[in-house]
Amino acid sequence: LMVARTQPSARQMLEVRHHLMRNLCRTHDLQEALLELAAQHTGTIMPGYTHFRHAQPTTFGHYLLSVSDAIGRSTMTLERGYHLMSLNELGCGALAGTSWPVDRDLVSQYMGMEGLIENTNDAVSYTDGYLVVVCGLTNVTNVCSRMALQCSYWSGAEYGFLEVGGIRGVSFMMPQKTNNPNGFERVRMRAGQMLGHLSGTAAAGLRAPHGDAFEMLHLTEPTLAALETADKCVIRLTAETRGLTVRKKNMLAALRGSYVAATELANQIVRDYKLGYRTAHKIVHEFVVLSEEQKVPANQAQTKLLDRAAEEVLGRKLGMDEARLRELLDPAYFIRVTRSKGGVAPEEVARMIADRRQKLADARTRHLKRIITLENAQKKMLADLHKLRQN
Amino acid sequence: LMVARTQPSARQMLEVRHHLMRNLCRTHDLQEALLELAAQHTGTIMPGYTHFRHAQPTTFGHYLLSVSDAIGRSTMTLERGYHLMSLNELGCGALAGTSWPVDRDLVSQYMGMEGLIENTNDAVSYTDGYLVVVCGLTNVTNVCSRMALQCSYWSGAEYGFLEVGGIRGVSFMMPQKTNNPNGFERVRMRAGQMLGHLSGTAAAGLRAPHGDAFEMLHLTEPTLAALETADKCVIRLTAETRGLTVRKKNMLAALRGSYVAATELANQIVRDYKLGYRTAHKIVHEFVVLSEEQKVPANQAQTKLLDRAAEEVLGRKLGMDEARLRELLDPAYFIRVTRSKGGVAPEEVARMIADRRQKLADARTRHLKRIITLENAQKKMLADLHKLRQN
Amino acid sequence: LMVARTQPSARQMLEVRHHLMRNLCRTHDLQEALLELAAQHTGTIMPGYTHFRHAQPTTFGHYLLSVSDAIGRSTMTLERGYHLMSLNELGCGALAGTSWPVDRDLVSQYMGMEGLIENTNDAVSYTDGYLVVVCGLTNVTNVCSRMALQCSYWSGAEYGFLEVGGIRGVSFMMPQKTNNPNGFERVRMRAGQMLGHLSGTAAAGLRAPHGDAFEMLHLTEPTLAALETADKCVIRLTAETRGLTVRKKNMLAALRGSYVAATELANQIVRDYKLGYRTAHKIVHEFVVLSEEQKVPANQAQTKLLDRAAEEVLGRKLGMDEARLRELLDPAYFIRVTRSKGGVAPEEVARMIADRRQKLADARTRHLKRIITLENAQKKMLADLHKLRQN
Amino acid sequence: LMVARTQPSARQMLEVRHHLMRNLCRTHDLQEALLELAAQHTGTIMPGYTHFRHAQPTTFGHYLLSVSDAIGRSTMTLERGYHLMSLNELGCGALAGTSWPVDRDLVSQYMGMEGLIENTNDAVSYTDGYLVVVCGLTNVTNVCSRMALQCSYWSGAEYGFLEVGGIRGVSFMMPQKTNNPNGFERVRMRAGQMLGHLSGTAAAGLRAPHGDAFEMLHLTEPTLAALETADKCVIRLTAETRGLTVRKKNMLAALRGSYVAATELANQIVRDYKLGYRTAHKIVHEFVVLSEEQKVPANQAQTKLLDRAAEEVLGRKLGMDEARLRELLDPAYFIRVTRSKGGVAPEEVARMIADRRQKLADARTRHLKRIITLENAQKKMLADLHKLRQN
Repeated sequence: LMVARTQPSARQMLEVRHHLMRNLCRTHDLQEALLELAAQHTGTIMPGYTHFRHAQPTTFGHYLLSVSDAIGRSTMTLERGYHLMSLNELGCGALAGTSWPVDRDLVSQYMGMEGLIENTNDAVSYTDGYLVVVCGLTNVTNVCSRMALQCSYWSGAEYGFLEVGGIRGVSFMMPQKTNNPNGFERVRMRAGQMLGHLSGTAAAGLRAPHGDAFEMLHLTEPTLAALETADKCVIRLTAETRGLTVRKKNMLAALRGSYVAATELANQIVRDYKLGYRTAHKIVHEFVVLSEEQKVPANQAQTKLLDRAAEEVLGRKLGMDEARLRELLDPAYFIRVTRSKGGVAPEEVARMIADRRQKLADARTRHLKRIITLENAQKKMLADLHKLRQN
Repeated sequence: LMVARTQPSARQMLEVRHHLMRNLCRTHDLQEALLELAAQHTGTIMPGYTHFRHAQPTTFGHYLLSVSDAIGRSTMTLERGYHLMSLNELGCGALAGTSWPVDRDLVSQYMGMEGLIENTNDAVSYTDGYLVVVCGLTNVTNVCSRMALQCSYWSGAEYGFLEVGGIRGVSFMMPQKTNNPNGFERVRMRAGQMLGHLSGTAAAGLRAPHGDAFEMLHLTEPTLAALETADKCVIRLTAETRGLTVRKKNMLAALRGSYVAATELANQIVRDYKLGYRTAHKIVHEFVVLSEEQKVPANQAQTKLLDRAAEEVLGRKLGMDEARLRELLDPAYFIRVTRSKGGVAPEEVARMIADRRQKLADARTRHLKRIITLENAQKKMLADLHKLRQN
Repeated sequence: LMVARTQPSARQMLEVRHHLMRNLCRTHDLQEALLELAAQHTGTIMPGYTHFRHAQPTTFGHYLLSVSDAIGRSTMTLERGYHLMSLNELGCGALAGTSWPVDRDLVSQYMGMEGLIENTNDAVSYTDGYLVVVCGLTNVTNVCSRMALQCSYWSGAEYGFLEVGGIRGVSFMMPQKTNNPNGFERVRMRAGQMLGHLSGTAAAGLRAPHGDAFEMLHLTEPTLAALETADKCVIRLTAETRGLTVRKKNMLAALRGSYVAATELANQIVRDYKLGYRTAHKIVHEFVVLSEEQKVPANQAQTKLLDRAAEEVLGRKLGMDEARLRELLDPAYFIRVTRSKGGVAPEEVARMIADRRQKLADARTRHLKRIITLENAQKKMLADLHKLRQN
Repeated sequence: LMVARTQPSARQMLEVRHHLMRNLCRTHDLQEALLELAAQHTGTIMPGYTHFRHAQPTTFGHYLLSVSDAIGRSTMTLERGYHLMSLNELGCGALAGTSWPVDRDLVSQYMGMEGLIENTNDAVSYTDGYLVVVCGLTNVTNVCSRMALQCSYWSGAEYGFLEVGGIRGVSFMMPQKTNNPNGFERVRMRAGQMLGHLSGTAAAGLRAPHGDAFEMLHLTEPTLAALETADKCVIRLTAETRGLTVRKKNMLAALRGSYVAATELANQIVRDYKLGYRTAHKIVHEFVVLSEEQKVPANQAQTKLLDRAAEEVLGRKLGMDEARLRELLDPAYFIRVTRSKGGVAPEEVARMIADRRQKLADARTRHLKRIITLENAQKKMLADLHKLRQN
């Protein structure tokens, strides 16, 4: 049995593949933790933010699901990366192949490979799969970093939405410090380091001649660094997610009296008064400005102010019922009626969570199949070696 | 018909997808040019290099195929990127969805989308597909850059393997300059710029909160820059490939008298004298050192030197026939017998080229199908709009 | 007059230098705006944060000065960059120099250069100055990005510290939106793009042979992109800084009842009771935990709780006066006594602002001197050309 | 004595400074090796390349000096980086300073610091100096990489200019391999990894709030990785430079018969026949084309072909003496007369080498002074501590 390869780069692909198996497992765990917490909070109303500002009511469950979904998509890229690191280059010789009657496909089988890098010079010049892996990892850690930023702020004094339960930093100078969000900070820090690993991996494939050269060999260094960094990042966020205490009251309180559901008021005006959305938007905008000038909170919204706004924009009153007005501005009402596909309505979020749990189970099954494939490959190789020795 | 989306990022995904369609086409063209030239040079023997040194004989056709194969693999990543840019986010509202009865799947159909970004906050926070696209492009341009470096050197005075026929730079200072490989240099330059676009794209997804923020919107800037840069790089290399004149004689001359086929001599010694490869390697190494000390070229190799080497290593002569020795050291012989899967033997390279041409045709068919899907989507949308107006 | 240079890269250095002159001016303007606002807020008490948590009281003036100082330091790097882009390469020939009796130092003078790239092959291979420029710009925009992140949050509903007065985004979907911090978001977005320009600039110098090659020429592309991006970033932050309305009451209110000044209480316990800092820290930590459990705000702090903590840690009461205890926990007191060099005490911040204004004036004088040098150089060149023609 | 600082980042600056001291030393060693080899080869004529093509004659000494000069310039950036890592942040408290009567300037003195980061929040938010250091290192390794690429090719079969004497790779598959330029390949590999460290360092300063956060702390990781990578790169190139064997004959042979000195012929035609350079260039260009068509080498150049070219361009013959024509085309003549400042003439290169040796000695003296400063600082601190204990 002759593998016919000068350089140890095949071993390096196996090493990357080995670590990637672990990373895939970790992202599944993170998704599981996110879905579990999401399932508990499909009814936990909180402000949804765009541009750092209250935008529309949402639920913490809907938010957590949005994080899990983004990570799930990148897990698919990592599975593609797994395939690309499961291509066999052995049998390539120095670059030209060999005159020995090697069976490259059998070697692939022995190594649990999913394919062959057929052209032998392509095999010794192989770099692309590494970058796909690091790209997939970067997409995962980028999303982790975004959630970590928000959780760092949301667990601070001004928001008070969350309480950190994972790594809680204290200060040896400031005696009052008890809950620095150090776990989330580490998530962000690791995510930042990924940018370096991504550049390093891309640079290694750029400069070399297309053929066997040292740069190729050392492509593995930034790739392995990326795998380790992503692993730490994902493990940390999983633990922090599991450790979170959610302060539902504070989340809801942040919306109390706020006009954050104004979009729905405008929507209903369109439906009830047959107006265009631009006009309804203008009326509601004026109404909110007037109400805030007069410090009228949304839960005490006054139809007289709405009518004043309507008169300005439209030349006539709307004559909406005051209870109806307040209902339309109620975040809970907003959540209830925002039932479009993928929206924040609790039953819709629950439906998606159930679907995602199935998808995650499928991903774990695919993963298990990979493990079995590798184990069977090794068994076959050992058995064949045994036979070979007996002959 | 209401698309229910605050930000123009859906338009941006369409713009990226539009350009990516063009880039896919360009990489197909490049593969075609490479395969065409490769088909002409399955028998064009040249030195194969590892670590910048003569390693084993190869053919120019085998080399060109190795470039095409690497690009073909990254084209698959670009197709995955196409899918990720064909996910519909419309109907996501500001982040929460909407109370309007929008049919998001119908909108997807109208836009020729391949799927939905279901969770509405995931939709406004979407970044991962962009990075997959730029990663795929970087893998393409990295390979282009590697080929361009080699062609720049191979078309210079010392190698003389190629003659540049694309962009041939002259100098307004040096009157003797007629063929600077400016086209290949531009390929390399563009490939270098991709590293910046890759970092820029990755950075945009790292820092924002997971939700709608300006960074998301401007993710498109480095992505579009990457698409344009890759396009220029690939077009240039296609033209340069088509413009190359191959100096077969010089390629062969570079091997004349060289011991570059020594691997095969060692292989045959293993077979004929039942020695281990380490021993055969050692004998041949000593033999080459002795021959070079005495300035004996490979095509005049002497069995007495081989025997001297064998005596040193093995304690006895091998007694090989001199004609056989010279045959084993002949690059043409090496090419003929290196018939393993993916190897340099002309019939094996020809087989692979035929296979790749079929694969390229398949890729073009998939591409055409995408175009038709987009056209049908537009037709359906216009037809439905027409009906809507009539009602 | 013969400049003896094949490539237009000298023209490119001049172009970079030209833009850099403008960028230097912009960073001076930003420092001016920051110092002006800082001068108005040396007494504006707010929470100082570490790890996203209340850490110690500070003033908005002290914070703004810390931003200005970081930018000032990077402006020095940019001045070094200016020097590196003011090195003359003309007279280098294609790489070897020339047999013409060129006076390279005179050419330097004509172009207002500060030095010569003497070795002619060094001149055609020059890349390092470009990277120093982009590195300095990145340091500037990184700091801008950090301030922009904080101002984005501080101007939101939960903090309420600031009101945005520059670019205030609205929403065409959400009628209640009136003040998205779009200006600050753009600052962050531009800062993110700089990472791509930095990688792009560094990559251009990495791969080429050390000599004249196309990569060198196009080094200018990412550098000019960086100069433009930084310019937009800095201009935007300057305008946003000038447009800010500061809600002093909200800043102070965020500290009301908070134990954020606990460090000073521990300090004073060390001084008054001759205890080690670890012991004092432990007592105060216990005291804060007890007080928060019993929901006692810091401005109503109770000595009996302090004594209980002291008994636990020390075995005995401290017997501090209650008025003294509350004074030590008062953020205003903390600000007053934190008088170490560079600290938050108003008179210390005022002293630093005066010093920085002088330093900024000096920087502007140096900048003016550069302009005059360039103008005189041009005058001398024109005069000498005139004489030359007359002869 | 109280340092008043919560975080260990001051210790990290000292660690970076410590390693940077070593790196500065290494770049001085590399310059020494380059200058030493350059001094031996001021008369070693070789082809100078632009765009991978013969451009003008140069000497190996002139080339090596151009590498050393570029590294010397970046060493100045590293010295600036040393200053920026020699700024004292101690005494900054958590961010606000302290009420203790700390003497921050005395602490600076004890640590051998060159300055103070005065504003205490600036001190805990400090990132810029790290990026300047990594930028300086990247500029050094970029130049190393460029020289390594050329030496890799120049030591190959087609060029034969150099013989590798450092790390000479062999192959366990190919028996004839004896001198893979693995040392130079490692230089290039390390230089490529720097791009990742640069991105990583820049990213760490981008995302954090401007204040104490975990990202700041871990800025040190990519910086230390960069220092180690650069160290390995520079040490390797120094060893490879010292190990080079220069094949003068092959260098000169590469120019034999070549029209590489055609620029000088054009120059002289301008001088002797009072023609414009464009005209002279055109004549010489035609002359070279004719000569190459007729396979006339430059050392047998024929005036009749020059005259034919002149007649075509100018309508009349030039009537140059044939010995003179051949002299003007002789690379040795070109080297002799290219005497402009910084040019390739041996005495000019020798003058520059002498100047650079003095500059290097000055740099080493500055370095020694830094060491002495650090030692004296430590002595003073220990002495003062001793006194303190005695009191």
